[in-house]
Amino acid sequence: MVIVMKPGSTDRNIGEVSKALENLGLGVHISKGSQRTIIGAIGDDRVLENVPLELMDGVEKLVPIVESYKLTSRTFRPESSVINVGGVEIGGKELVLMAGPCAVENREQILKAARAVKKSGAKFLRGGAFKPRTSPYSFQGLEEEGLKLLKEAREETGLLIISEVTSEKTVEIANDYVDMFQVGARNAQNFQLLKSIGQSKKPVLYKRGLSTTINEWLTAAEYIMSEGNYNVVLCERGIRTFETATRNTLDLSSVPVIKNASHLPILVDPSHAAGKSQYVFPLSMAAIAAGSDGLIVEVHPDPMHAMSDAAQQLTPQAFDSLCEKISQLCGIIGREFEYGA
Amino acid sequence: MVIVMKPGSTDRNIGEVSKALENLGLGVHISKGSQRTIIGAIGDDRVLENVPLELMDGVEKLVPIVESYKLTSRTFRPESSVINVGGVEIGGKELVLMAGPCAVENREQILKAARAVKKSGAKFLRGGAFKPRTSPYSFQGLEEEGLKLLKEAREETGLLIISEVTSEKTVEIANDYVDMFQVGARNAQNFQLLKSIGQSKKPVLYKRGLSTTINEWLTAAEYIMSEGNYNVVLCERGIRTFETATRNTLDLSSVPVIKNASHLPILVDPSHAAGKSQYVFPLSMAAIAAGSDGLIVEVHPDPMHAMSDAAQQLTPQAFDSLCEKISQLCGIIGREFEYGA
Amino acid sequence: MVIVMKPGSTDRNIGEVSKALENLGLGVHISKGSQRTIIGAIGDDRVLENVPLELMDGVEKLVPIVESYKLTSRTFRPESSVINVGGVEIGGKELVLMAGPCAVENREQILKAARAVKKSGAKFLRGGAFKPRTSPYSFQGLEEEGLKLLKEAREETGLLIISEVTSEKTVEIANDYVDMFQVGARNAQNFQLLKSIGQSKKPVLYKRGLSTTINEWLTAAEYIMSEGNYNVVLCERGIRTFETATRNTLDLSSVPVIKNASHLPILVDPSHAAGKSQYVFPLSMAAIAAGSDGLIVEVHPDPMHAMSDAAQQLTPQAFDSLCEKISQLCGIIGREFEYGA
Amino acid sequence: MVIVMKPGSTDRNIGEVSKALENLGLGVHISKGSQRTIIGAIGDDRVLENVPLELMDGVEKLVPIVESYKLTSRTFRPESSVINVGGVEIGGKELVLMAGPCAVENREQILKAARAVKKSGAKFLRGGAFKPRTSPYSFQGLEEEGLKLLKEAREETGLLIISEVTSEKTVEIANDYVDMFQVGARNAQNFQLLKSIGQSKKPVLYKRGLSTTINEWLTAAEYIMSEGNYNVVLCERGIRTFETATRNTLDLSSVPVIKNASHLPILVDPSHAAGKSQYVFPLSMAAIAAGSDGLIVEVHPDPMHAMSDAAQQLTPQAFDSLCEKISQLCGIIGREFEYGA
Repeated sequence: MVIVMKPGSTDRNIGEVSKALENLGLGVHISKGSQRTIIGAIGDDRVLENVPLELMDGVEKLVPIVESYKLTSRTFRPESSVINVGGVEIGGKELVLMAGPCAVENREQILKAARAVKKSGAKFLRGGAFKPRTSPYSFQGLEEEGLKLLKEAREETGLLIISEVTSEKTVEIANDYVDMFQVGARNAQNFQLLKSIGQSKKPVLYKRGLSTTINEWLTAAEYIMSEGNYNVVLCERGIRTFETATRNTLDLSSVPVIKNASHLPILVDPSHAAGKSQYVFPLSMAAIAAGSDGLIVEVHPDPMHAMSDAAQQLTPQAFDSLCEKISQLCGIIGREFEYGA
Repeated sequence: MVIVMKPGSTDRNIGEVSKALENLGLGVHISKGSQRTIIGAIGDDRVLENVPLELMDGVEKLVPIVESYKLTSRTFRPESSVINVGGVEIGGKELVLMAGPCAVENREQILKAARAVKKSGAKFLRGGAFKPRTSPYSFQGLEEEGLKLLKEAREETGLLIISEVTSEKTVEIANDYVDMFQVGARNAQNFQLLKSIGQSKKPVLYKRGLSTTINEWLTAAEYIMSEGNYNVVLCERGIRTFETATRNTLDLSSVPVIKNASHLPILVDPSHAAGKSQYVFPLSMAAIAAGSDGLIVEVHPDPMHAMSDAAQQLTPQAFDSLCEKISQLCGIIGREFEYGA
Repeated sequence: MVIVMKPGSTDRNIGEVSKALENLGLGVHISKGSQRTIIGAIGDDRVLENVPLELMDGVEKLVPIVESYKLTSRTFRPESSVINVGGVEIGGKELVLMAGPCAVENREQILKAARAVKKSGAKFLRGGAFKPRTSPYSFQGLEEEGLKLLKEAREETGLLIISEVTSEKTVEIANDYVDMFQVGARNAQNFQLLKSIGQSKKPVLYKRGLSTTINEWLTAAEYIMSEGNYNVVLCERGIRTFETATRNTLDLSSVPVIKNASHLPILVDPSHAAGKSQYVFPLSMAAIAAGSDGLIVEVHPDPMHAMSDAAQQLTPQAFDSLCEKISQLCGIIGREFEYGA
Repeated sequence: MVIVMKPGSTDRNIGEVSKALENLGLGVHISKGSQRTIIGAIGDDRVLENVPLELMDGVEKLVPIVESYKLTSRTFRPESSVINVGGVEIGGKELVLMAGPCAVENREQILKAARAVKKSGAKFLRGGAFKPRTSPYSFQGLEEEGLKLLKEAREETGLLIISEVTSEKTVEIANDYVDMFQVGARNAQNFQLLKSIGQSKKPVLYKRGLSTTINEWLTAAEYIMSEGNYNVVLCERGIRTFETATRNTLDLSSVPVIKNASHLPILVDPSHAAGKSQYVFPLSMAAIAAGSDGLIVEVHPDPMHAMSDAAQQLTPQAFDSLCEKISQLCGIIGREFEYGA
């Protein structure tokens, strides 16, 4: 932490700040510039977290030097993490595709979806059982019944199951059914939820919030990791901006930024970002080209009759074409993907 | 809902959309313009929520005509709601001030704060027991112990108690201690939480999310009201924008917009928006001048030693000056506030 | 400037950065922390502006310590500036109101508007002659003819004239007609325009851009001041955010932030922020309560027949009521305003 | 245009709105719904542009049905436009790369850059002569001297020249030197500039503004096209959001959205979006994968000694690697690019 003093700050002010730092066990480095004196705090900044230095006389502002996250940081762990979920590695050379409908609607729908996406090369079946919908009058999901259908789909197809959890209680319920939890954008800073996932140790796909900076995202992921669960995969799904032509603005820059700042794998969800199925193909290709470790894509056997987010779900045919193209793209960018596995 | 057809749509396309609407029990009104044909759906739009009309051949886009919220809407209830919490009316002629520290830290701190804010005219004591902090390494609150201290402060001072809840479990715990729940910005779309508050029937101060539009905010409030809890007070606390000079951008336009769109009362939280105590006074005055029904302000007996958000908490003296000014302001804008009650 | 070195940076890296700073005539202060080494550059940072230190081996990032603006800064000039325009002082104790139609449409309209706003207490008549409209198919203004009508209105009423300029050429034309230039949000970073206004020495009301941070705004104002024109009044008019209920989000926090960071006066334009006349009254009151030095408000003698931005223009009656309330508000906040002057 | 009436609107209100529409030569279609009456205006909406229907009694809001742009719209011209600049086609099967330094600094620098980028396959040399810099204390460009050096580079290498213009005067000056104008983000709504480019007929690369919606961008492009200049190529370069890890947030969704809404070609500028050269490669690949018609990339023979935006400029070697990868990517996505031409 660097403490920047106001132009008119006195030696006494500087002395008092220095003393406060020393009392916390930090080293002090004073540097008098032409316009400002700055004080460097040397040691583990985190002792400063709950100390209001900015209220001390003569202090203009605090400038953090090191990032506010630790376990998620590449400084902490220089080599990239590979997360193993039921034998499938996320973050390795092979791209991982997760696909399935927005919501589990009934046995036929989810089984059809499962068979289709497996055929094209997906390793995970996604499907919402607990649906956090903007309006309470929209379809809210089949809840535990939906999880049972997902489990049935796993038994038939061998696909791994990922499904969203939205509270401590749904974590408890879903724990028996899914291979990987998903935390959605609206719960990105639901810290109680993150803690309870941290305690569960089950792998989690942790989506960025609609207005979460990359720094806050990595810091919030500490809630999961500091509880001992290191099986975290990040997922970019679009942020909220002033643009209304798409549901959200997919921030593909976050892929290389995360790869630089963190050791965690990152997937991209092109479906929620775009909000329209016609944009899913170009954004999926772009995501892979930008370095994403895979995708989570909405695929519905019959989008015309989907009960939620119909407009953004791919048909199995469209998903298959996408998988084929992705397998071609892999050759160029040094990744692998087994199309039609 | 208005369905806008593409330029080249055929009579057959139009006929199929019309039929789909009729099958849902809606009336149909077709209007052929010079550039587009539009189809009006007449009846209760909400049957369309889960029907993907935008996927039908020839459809360009759907244009909603009525708002997506109902119980929160002024169309539903033209007269303004006044919410009674333990004998104090929110949304009436009298302004209501809620004040207290960011977090409950210990008995002495919370009692000192309570006495001070009561003396200046506050009717509610605020204080966080469950703290959703950006970093897991920051102080997380005293939890139930903090709630007990708040209850003690109520017994001594007669102030009503408001405190934040962050999950179904914390709702259950806090239910016995507080007069009013608070839902924070990070949980604005934590629908499980909203539902459980809806079931509790206890009054709630429901804050806008960092990236929640006013339309989404009112729609999410339906999660509380549709469970039967009509005691909802909204709270503007700043939204996330590109500006970094303040912690958030306080959107005071939302006050008159909410007054126009909804019958619910609205308070303003200037502390979290500004992030710096020096901006709390001007923003508080501005909020009241804009028509807010009151304020929730952070006040700490000794901000220099606060354990969280120190920089944004007022001293009791500064809060007292603010209350005095607000009581003067009331005369001009046709409101009332008993300073030094 | 503080240069933060990467975790693995070597003594050689540190030496080379130090040498580069010394070669630029800067002092060097090295501080080795527990996680990072930081290097303080002592002296006038601006020599670093065109030097890519961040590309040197071992450098992680640069952290600016002093603001990027100078002439606009309160560090540069601690006492608040009062700008005198034709005998009217902006930034002093007295609030200044500028009012008039969005666009000058014809003699009768502008004279009616001028008489009305003068009667309520405005000191400036505003009216657009060069209109930067979002669509080329919208009314583009009367150009020089409009300026002549404004001059006529000044001769009759004695009001000072303010009108928008949009390019070097329009600066030349308007120079003979107006008392104060206005730079609109869309030209907030049109640096050629700012320079030519700087050369003209005529006072200017310089609006914030739709996506301009306060820091960028003050830095861009240097384009005017560094050419020798110190007669700059800032104007907050709303920024672009994700919220669509209002045309823009009025950032009233910018008023106290500017008062803290700069010595320049600041006005608020509630009309463009709100986009709807019904929100102009509450936002105007809020702006004054927040500490604004005045307002620029759209007033049209007959909004129903306005040729642009009809929805956001006040009637003369509504403006008169606003002025009356503002004069009452002044007593409380220690300002003055002569209503019905 | 659809006019939505308030819940309590009377037959008289509806009659008056209908009459107002008919007086403008529009057809009227009234549709009484269960909650609202809506009135469809049939005919050319643009007559409504300057008529404040929203102020009429009983009117709740206006809902536009057709887009506000015309000449740029794919409705107006269904087949994609290919813009020919000096024999090079933009928007055809072949990808077009424009590359060169941020600013022209001297003869050696620009000639070195020109030779390098041509060798890798670029068809255009970019280089700023008039630099719109955030601070007036930053390097402002060589102006006409820079344009002469660009012309010299064209004579030697045969590359086409693109350079930014910032005002009517710089359009006049640059007209003799460049093959294509560039309009930068800060001037995206400098309508005087757009009009003067429209009158010049010279091809233009028109960048999106930092806070310009896609709808506004296409509408502003009408300023160029309605003056008779149809040689417009759009360029996505990142928008302003709350994220600060990158200089701007590159909105790659805009590529397929523009391809859907407009017939104009679109390029992507990854350099300004990222602000850091290490992110240029992944974002360039992503842009091409998303369907961009090409790129404009900053390349400097010696970024360490660049006079502006050093951190975001590629070395010639890095640009060459990028070109090689792009030529491989072309095969998969059905495009062409001659690497090392």
